[in-house]
Amino acid sequence: MQFFKVKTVEETFALIEEKIPKIREVLVCNLEEALHCILAEPVVAAEDVPGFDRSTVDGYAVFSKDTYGSSESMPGFLNVAGEVKMGEEASIPLSRGNAIYVPTGGMLPPGSDSVLMIEHCEEIGGLLNTYKQIAPGENVIRAGEDIQAGEVLLEVGTKLRPQEIGALASLGISKVSVFRPIKAAYLSTGDEIVPYDTETLEIGQIRDINYLTVSGLAREWGVEVIYGGITTDDYEIFSAKARELYEQADILILSGGSSVGAKDYTTEVIQSLGDPGVFVHGISIKPGKPTILAVAEGKPVIGLPGHPASAMIIFRLFGEKVIKQLQGERLERKPERILARITKNIASAPGRSDYIRVRLVEKDGEWWADPIIGKSGLITTLVKSDGIVEIVSEKEGISQGEYVPVLASK
Amino acid sequence: MQFFKVKTVEETFALIEEKIPKIREVLVCNLEEALHCILAEPVVAAEDVPGFDRSTVDGYAVFSKDTYGSSESMPGFLNVAGEVKMGEEASIPLSRGNAIYVPTGGMLPPGSDSVLMIEHCEEIGGLLNTYKQIAPGENVIRAGEDIQAGEVLLEVGTKLRPQEIGALASLGISKVSVFRPIKAAYLSTGDEIVPYDTETLEIGQIRDINYLTVSGLAREWGVEVIYGGITTDDYEIFSAKARELYEQADILILSGGSSVGAKDYTTEVIQSLGDPGVFVHGISIKPGKPTILAVAEGKPVIGLPGHPASAMIIFRLFGEKVIKQLQGERLERKPERILARITKNIASAPGRSDYIRVRLVEKDGEWWADPIIGKSGLITTLVKSDGIVEIVSEKEGISQGEYVPVLASK
Repeated sequence: MQFFKVKTVEETFALIEEKIPKIREVLVCNLEEALHCILAEPVVAAEDVPGFDRSTVDGYAVFSKDTYGSSESMPGFLNVAGEVKMGEEASIPLSRGNAIYVPTGGMLPPGSDSVLMIEHCEEIGGLLNTYKQIAPGENVIRAGEDIQAGEVLLEVGTKLRPQEIGALASLGISKVSVFRPIKAAYLSTGDEIVPYDTETLEIGQIRDINYLTVSGLAREWGVEVIYGGITTDDYEIFSAKARELYEQADILILSGGSSVGAKDYTTEVIQSLGDPGVFVHGISIKPGKPTILAVAEGKPVIGLPGHPASAMIIFRLFGEKVIKQLQGERLERKPERILARITKNIASAPGRSDYIRVRLVEKDGEWWADPIIGKSGLITTLVKSDGIVEIVSEKEGISQGEYVPVLASK
Repeated sequence: MQFFKVKTVEETFALIEEKIPKIREVLVCNLEEALHCILAEPVVAAEDVPGFDRSTVDGYAVFSKDTYGSSESMPGFLNVAGEVKMGEEASIPLSRGNAIYVPTGGMLPPGSDSVLMIEHCEEIGGLLNTYKQIAPGENVIRAGEDIQAGEVLLEVGTKLRPQEIGALASLGISKVSVFRPIKAAYLSTGDEIVPYDTETLEIGQIRDINYLTVSGLAREWGVEVIYGGITTDDYEIFSAKARELYEQADILILSGGSSVGAKDYTTEVIQSLGDPGVFVHGISIKPGKPTILAVAEGKPVIGLPGHPASAMIIFRLFGEKVIKQLQGERLERKPERILARITKNIASAPGRSDYIRVRLVEKDGEWWADPIIGKSGLITTLVKSDGIVEIVSEKEGISQGEYVPVLASK
């Protein structure tokens, strides 16, 4: 068997980017179903939005030059030459020296270049007193100012949030090509693990809570999870079960028992699934060191540590990145990390990334991250926390009052 | 008809808290289905977690006093009196002067109070050389240290995130009482509004994109939305359609046309649905002033402005709060606002809250909020944005470099 060197967090992220493939299958779906899906083709605008020059205020469409020199003390004068109604085409061009009334959202008459707000003029018997000079383009949205025909509005890999769906609709696009949503399969291993709904535990037994936390996170990321149950530490049984699930899903997630050493076949089972196999075996991180990442014949496999809090933190950090990359999402550094100030000094070993559970408290308009005291095995430390603070591997700790990035929970 | 004074953002939030009722119906569901549901009954622990004292390391269970004075240069000596296996009950009590091997997660023998890590001792032919003195409780998780029997673990109104689901499972709780998920109904009004999938627009027509953005946000908050289509500005038709939808849902959302004045019956229609009726009619906010909030016979009604960007920002700010309160969620100030530094000076009228769309850019380990230039009617300004910056009503603007709260989008 191969030997592996423990990787840093930064190396692990770089390896995920290098090794995890993107799914290729594409679906065409209605806009309503496309929420949170990942765009598989760029979207190019076929028309201008808006399609015509519009007023952003109630006022009079004018030639801006005709207002030059107008002020409260020295008003200018224009002839009112008509009105454009909401939702109607403005077909009569504006002539110099004239003004035409336009409501908010209404179409500008040809020739006009700006709109004088009703607050800045007064109509008296067909004559408009202008009290302000305006610039060309003032109070006007030009045709194509929101989106121009031919413009690439959205690129491949864009996650379709409600605003992207809205922008697509504003272009009259009602169907969109997205990558097929991926499916994950989950399997717990360990002789001591029992189903999570076991009412009374015998000594030494541990409920399979990792399935619930891991599948809960996956569902938050839009991934359906097939539950593979619990397998014993017997190699043949474990291996057969893992292969069966691997074949049903796009990604396989294994959660180790908390047992140490002898009976842990996770690495061997993962290697047996296919090439190239394991590329991360152990991460220099606390908690969560015994983490395994692999690709077997194009499908990612994740081996999570058994401790509930560790499993959840590791899956939040690396599982999300693996899943997003597999799903074809463009991986930009999104503002998922909040900056907060730490309330206490915290020591950390250099070369190892530490993740500290914190409660976020607002004080004097700033966020403060207050570390939660408790051993990493305690699930209640996660229940009490609003997020986790990252102490990157180059740092030897953080000092009270320092700004730290917090990965906030939903 | 009643007359209304425009409310500040702060007054609006306070009124939502005062006026919006909580749903009362309760469902009992399986843990797996309970993700993101709101707890309707407190959860009290029936058992200790863990159920027994456990070791957090591989090592030897000892009386801590027996290690006092031990050091690398002056080791102490203990007799090795056996081994506890993983998943087995430790029934033989520890006697003074003895040590018993325990693996990580293993049960502590009665009498022992701490575990000496294998790194800090050496077993030679049944004799243990101890190289370090340890304190009582060291490397031990006590029974009940994570959760104590009788403790209120989760309160009514808690949103069940993956970690809460995990904590419930660790207690062997497999069914949980939650508030029934609410259902919203949505109706667009305005003669100029056409279905969002209309391919070619006639002059003056606007596609109904607010349905997609508003229902998209509602789905992110776990709310199903019934689409009521588009109604004309005719009072009788509008009113009948609104009532029909109101009766099918727990909350009604109306999106106004962008038309101004004469034909806007939204307020009258909302008042006709029942008492006490409208409690907010106009908010001192930019964009989004013409916002209506009401309660009709126990059901909230929201009237959104017609402009797509305004409708989305208003729904994000106030709709989410209305929905969470109706759903029974405890309203704590969660860290959904990221603190970032603004890249430009921005002026704002005091007494009015301004919401500026921004792109978040990381620079020197800090988040900078870069305002997106564009008129509020442009949906692309939302597509380009990572969130919105809040300028609270007391402020006359913000200066370059100042820290500002950003409501980040998902």
